Formats: sequence, C-alpha cells, structure tokens
Amino acid sequence: MFQRLLKIARQSKEDSRTMALLPDKIKKSALKKAAAHLLENEEKILKANQKDIELAKKNKLSNALIDRLLLNPKRIKDLAKSVEEIAELPDPNGEVIRDWQNSKGLRIQKKRVPLGVIAIIFESRPNVTAEAAALCLKAGNSVILRGGSEAFNSNTAISKIFNEAVVQEGIPPHAVTMILDPNRKNIYALSKMDQWIDLLIARGSEQMVREIREQATVPVLGHGKGVCHVYIDSVCDQKMAENIALNAKVQRPGVCNAMETLLIHESQAKELLPSLAKKYLDAGVLLKGDEISRKIVPQIQKAGEEDWKTEYLDLILSIKIVNSLEEAIVHINRYGSGHTEAIVTKSKENAKKFLQEVDAAAVFHNSSTRMHDGAVFGLGAEIGISTQKLHARGTMGVRELTTTKYVVYGKGQIRG
Amino acid sequence: MFQRLLKIARQSKEDSRTMALLPDKIKKSALKKAAAHLLENEEKILKANQKDIELAKKNKLSNALIDRLLLNPKRIKDLAKSVEEIAELPDPNGEVIRDWQNSKGLRIQKKRVPLGVIAIIFESRPNVTAEAAALCLKAGNSVILRGGSEAFNSNTAISKIFNEAVVQEGIPPHAVTMILDPNRKNIYALSKMDQWIDLLIARGSEQMVREIREQATVPVLGHGKGVCHVYIDSVCDQKMAENIALNAKVQRPGVCNAMETLLIHESQAKELLPSLAKKYLDAGVLLKGDEISRKIVPQIQKAGEEDWKTEYLDLILSIKIVNSLEEAIVHINRYGSGHTEAIVTKSKENAKKFLQEVDAAAVFHNSSTRMHDGAVFGLGAEIGISTQKLHARGTMGVRELTTTKYVVYGKGQIRG
Repeated sequence: MFQRLLKIARQSKEDSRTMALLPDKIKKSALKKAAAHLLENEEKILKANQKDIELAKKNKLSNALIDRLLLNPKRIKDLAKSVEEIAELPDPNGEVIRDWQNSKGLRIQKKRVPLGVIAIIFESRPNVTAEAAALCLKAGNSVILRGGSEAFNSNTAISKIFNEAVVQEGIPPHAVTMILDPNRKNIYALSKMDQWIDLLIARGSEQMVREIREQATVPVLGHGKGVCHVYIDSVCDQKMAENIALNAKVQRPGVCNAMETLLIHESQAKELLPSLAKKYLDAGVLLKGDEISRKIVPQIQKAGEEDWKTEYLDLILSIKIVNSLEEAIVHINRYGSGHTEAIVTKSKENAKKFLQEVDAAAVFHNSSTRMHDGAVFGLGAEIGISTQKLHARGTMGVRELTTTKYVVYGKGQIRG
Repeated sequence: MFQRLLKIARQSKEDSRTMALLPDKIKKSALKKAAAHLLENEEKILKANQKDIELAKKNKLSNALIDRLLLNPKRIKDLAKSVEEIAELPDPNGEVIRDWQNSKGLRIQKKRVPLGVIAIIFESRPNVTAEAAALCLKAGNSVILRGGSEAFNSNTAISKIFNEAVVQEGIPPHAVTMILDPNRKNIYALSKMDQWIDLLIARGSEQMVREIREQATVPVLGHGKGVCHVYIDSVCDQKMAENIALNAKVQRPGVCNAMETLLIHESQAKELLPSLAKKYLDAGVLLKGDEISRKIVPQIQKAGEEDWKTEYLDLILSIKIVNSLEEAIVHINRYGSGHTEAIVTKSKENAKKFLQEVDAAAVFHNSSTRMHDGAVFGLGAEIGISTQKLHARGTMGVRELTTTKYVVYGKGQIRG
C-alpha cells in the first residue's frame, strides 16, 4: 500500500506542474462538463448512495451522520450547481497581491500561484468528493481524495463520473485521484509525504483530525469542530433573538456552524426563555441548562461541565444564563472552539466589544451562526471551515487553495 | 519542566488577550525604549557574547556558525536600528482585507487580528531574540522564545534588557518570555500545547526543524533550508552574470539565501567559467562540478549526486553546465529547496518561463539571491524565510504574524 500511495503522490506532483500552467478556459470547461455529467448520471449516483445508506442504518450510525451521508435528487442538483459555480469563479492565480519597488530599484511582485498537490481526507458527506475536487482543480492544483469508508459506494460513483468528464476536457489524468482503501490507518502514510504533498485537508471527527495532525509532516488544515454560541444580550429585539436562536440550533443541527450553547443575559431570561424553550421542545430539541435556567423552565435537564465543551451535532442544546456581556465573552473564549459566535443586541457598544474580544474565525452581530458558509458569504463553495489561525481561518474557498510567490525583476542588483 | 512550560504557556495566552487590545502607541513606545536600552547596554551584551564565542571555539563549531553567533558594536547598532524600525512599522491589525455585502444583506469584513501566542525555537543568531520579540509584539502577540544553548549568555542578556524596557512602557509582564533550559528536547513539549500556543516558528538546522515538525500539533512555520541556484542563461550580460554569481556565493556564505549551485548554459561556460572560477578561488571558495565544468577548469573537484542537494552554508560551490533553460528548470525543481532562485538573462521570454515554472518562494531576474530579505524588500525586519507554501511563503514579516477574522453585521438574517 505504501508503495502504491507513493506512486500516486509522485504522479500527482508531476501532473500538478501541468495543472499550474493550464489556462482557466480549460479548467472552466472541464468543470462544466463534470457538472453536466453528474446530473446525467443521477440515477447511478443515487443507487450507489442507497447502498451506503442501507449499510449505515445496519451499522446503526447516528441520525446526524446518516443525514450527512444521504444524497437525493435535490442534493445532486445542488452539487452539480455548486460545481458549475466553481467553474465560473474567477481564477485566483496570477493575481498580483502587492507590487512595489524597493530602495535599490528592484521591482517586487507578490503573486498568487497554485499550491501543488492537495490531499483531502474526509468523512461522510459524499458531495465533498466532487466539490473538493472542483475547488482544487479550479485553484490549479492536483488533488488526492480519500473519503470515508461509510460513503464508499457514493464516492466511487461520483469520482468516476467526475474524472471521466474532466480528463476528456484536457485535465491531466493524475490531477484527480480517488483512493479506495477501506483502512484509514493506511492512508495516514500520505500525511508524511511532505516532499510530494503540499497540503493535507482533514475533514471529519475531532478525533480523526487530531490523529492526522499528530503524525503529519505535511501541513494540515483541519475542518475544525464547532462549539458555537449565540449570546442574547440585555438590550435586544426579542423576536429577532428568538428567530436567530431557533435557526442556529434546529435548521440543520448536524453541521459545524450550528449552535451548541445558548447564552442569555439574566435580564432577558425570564421573559424570553419560557416561549423559546417551548419552541425548542416542539422541534424535538433536548434541553440542558444551568440552575437558573432550570428554575425558569423545569423541562430543562441539568447540564454539567462536559456539556459546555461538547459539539452535539444533534438536536441537543445547552443553556446558560449570564449576568454580563463580560461573562458571556469569558465563557465563549474558554469553552468555544473558535469557530462561529453570535451576539444579538441593540447596543452598538456591546456588539463592538463582543466582536472584538471574542476569539473566533467568524463573529456575527444580529445574525445566525448558520450563515458562516462560503456559498452564503458569496465566495463560492467552501472546502471547509478552519478553526486554525494559520493560512486560512473560517470558511475556505478557492483562494485558500493557493499560495504566493515573490517574483522580482532586477537590473543586476547585488547585496552590498 | 512540563508543568513550568504549561504555566508559561497559560500566562502567555492570558496576556495575549491584553496584547491584542493594546493601542499601537504603547507598542511603538515600548519598542523604541527597548532599542535605546539595547544600545545603552552594548557593553553588557558584548561581554555575554564573548563568553558564548569562546565556548563555541572551544567546542569547535564551524566558521559559519561562529559567524552567526558573533555580535560586535556594529551588529548591536544594527539590531537596535532594526527594533526601532519595527516600532515604526504600521500596525497590521485592524486592516480590513475585504469588505462586502452578500445577497442577503449581510455586511462581511475580513479583518486582520493578532495570532495570540507565538513560540519561537531558534539556534545561533542572538540578534533573533530581540528582533523576533519585537516583531511578535508589534503584531499584537505574546511570544515565548527559546534560543540555542550555544548563545545562552547572549540571549539571557538581550532578553533581560529588552524585557525591562518594554514592561516599563506598558507591555504586560508575560507577553515576552525567554525560556532558559539547556535541554532542547524539553522544549519540544511546547510544540504540543496547541490549546495555548497558536504558532510555532522553528529557525535552525534542517534536522531541528524536522524533529519539531514531526511531533508538533501546534502549526509550525519553519525557516527552511536554502539550496539556492543562480542560472546563467545563453543570452546574458556577462559582467552582470559574474557580479551576481559572485555576490550570491561569497558576500555572506553562511546564510540561507546564499547560492549553493551555479548553473551555466553550455554556450556561456567556456568563456565565462575560467575567469569566474579564478575569482571564486581567489575568494577561497572550494569548487565542485560536473565533468564538463572540470574539463574547462581543472581546479574544480568532482561533484556527486549528494552535492546537488547540499546546503553548504560555507565557501563551497557546486557547478553544473546545462544545455538548455529547460534542463536548468528541471534541475532546480528537483534539487532546490524552494527557497530563492535566480536567472541572469537578456531574454524576456526565457526570464518569463523561468520565473513561472521554477517552484520557489522567490524567483529573481537579473539580481542576486542574497536580495531575498525582508529588510532589503522594504518590509521591515524578517522573522525568517519560509519555504512552506502555507500561510507565509518567502520572507516573513510583521504581517505574517497575524491572522484574520470574519466580522459580520446583520439585521436578523437567518439561514433559509
């Protein structure tokens, strides 16, 4: 297996040099062809996905995981649309980020260029296969994909359909490689091939990302866990607060930008919590909370220290009543995962303090945490949301799959 | 030791929150004070450095290492000047990198913010202590420094002098911490404290950087090794070619942007090599080369496969005669370390091809590789030159010590 992976990595590197010089016209038409090809083969993809779903049910995977795994005609249409949108994105490469002359008359340009080879190890969502490949190609890279074994059939079908289309349009044959190996540990060898692979993106459980990070010598960008909060401030539009708090939890609980803990200022709790809790309970949300919240709404179960740190990814919510904005900020900086944090307030001053002092990839004023998304932001499909602070923080799109290069023009300048 | 390091990391994180909110005025005056304080204490620093140099000679360190270790009045003046220049740099934080509205009316800003806690593990050059600390503070971070044991006395003196000055001016007490532990392995514990440390910068030997990378879970930026080339093309100004090729090797051979391999187009070799070789030999350079070069200049010793990969960091040069621009590019992409690469040519077309196809952090046309330097570029002092492609590639200055944050302003928007 190691030899096979090494061969894949080498071929991928070789083809990445061709990719880097490919005109955008070819990348664009290849991705459009892939989108069309995915739609034409909807039935094949659904059949493959059905096999995965049945297996998942048999293996008693959680509802959140099965939701992530599931494809249907709408999701395939969305996927094709997403690949088409990626095709139409401006090519980030060649962009001159800075351009200046130094005191010795050197002209210095900082230019955007492709990264080279990107390996992506991911779990569950099979649409990632096509979206991630499309983003990597658009950014001028080769990509090595390794999806979760639970989506084996879906991934195999999608990558085959995708690859046929792009190679037909002039993408080099080893620019996209899908690795079909059921044993994840084997795949970790990829994480040490820093001579051939420039970036490793890990999307999956916290444990999986940590395991990869611990042994990788290739730089890793992890799609981080989201312990996201909504804080309802002392001065706020209660209707807006309710809408945002509901949306952040129930609209799609199985994803990273869903809220896990609701913080409410004590001055709002008595009035707001009873009706809000009723709506949560009606939506099937299991509520856990601190003592004060449980005095207001007896249906709330007791939350422990562990709850404040937990990414439920499910219809479960922890609730804490705080007595100040400061307490909310301290709680978030202590227990949050640096993903997405929101404040609902009418006070500009409080908003400013929250947005400045909360240490997270994205901070929102008067909007749902669920809005932290590359497509919603208008940046095109995302390859994930990074909670790291290096290279890319927050939603990562096509620009985050490039690097830069100093290109310097001289007239014989030497160091004095 | 582990408990002590953990305590340092926690305190550092705590003070990083204060640092992040500190007005630039305070950072500026603190760094100016530090610069002045370093000058005032020149004698103390030189005395401490003398001890390190004597020990280094006794331990038979290489000339290149002793050169890196040595401080003299001029280098201390340069160091103070550098700290003062860093003080005067514009504060990178708060910069709005992008600012737009999405289709739902969300206003989205991508803003520059401090990273948090930066740990720097470095070897040899004691001036790094003050420069690195100054850059980290200017960027709004806390910094944990661990210098090489060979510079123990110099580092102790410099950090003490530096710290006294900045704390007097309002920098929090744990914003700069120097770790004085002679055992490097102990320090590696820092590389696993990803909960407290946001970035680890490794400056030193290739082996040291690799060791750190292999066990770190904190993201690592390595100051990479420089196997840099100058390629003299078939059409070139011979005088310019000679100047650049000489400067790149002999002006300061012990640093990463010095040339290690000279590539000459065969059409230029016969005419250029004899006089150039004489100049190298006069400057004390040991020449190694391929067969063709040795036929032209018999004093050139035989170069082996190993030579093409070696960063000599000394007055040693390997020489290869190539028969085309393409051969030069393939050689560089195969043996180079992706650091700094230069072409000397009159042909715009050849320059364009070289600058585009050579995969390195910085590519130069008609200038010495020695010009790849933050200060020379006009960016202020550098914290190192990165050969990685993530986050920062090439010379890293104050901007590279920050991250970004999405700050989003809504009016109640939720996900549909």
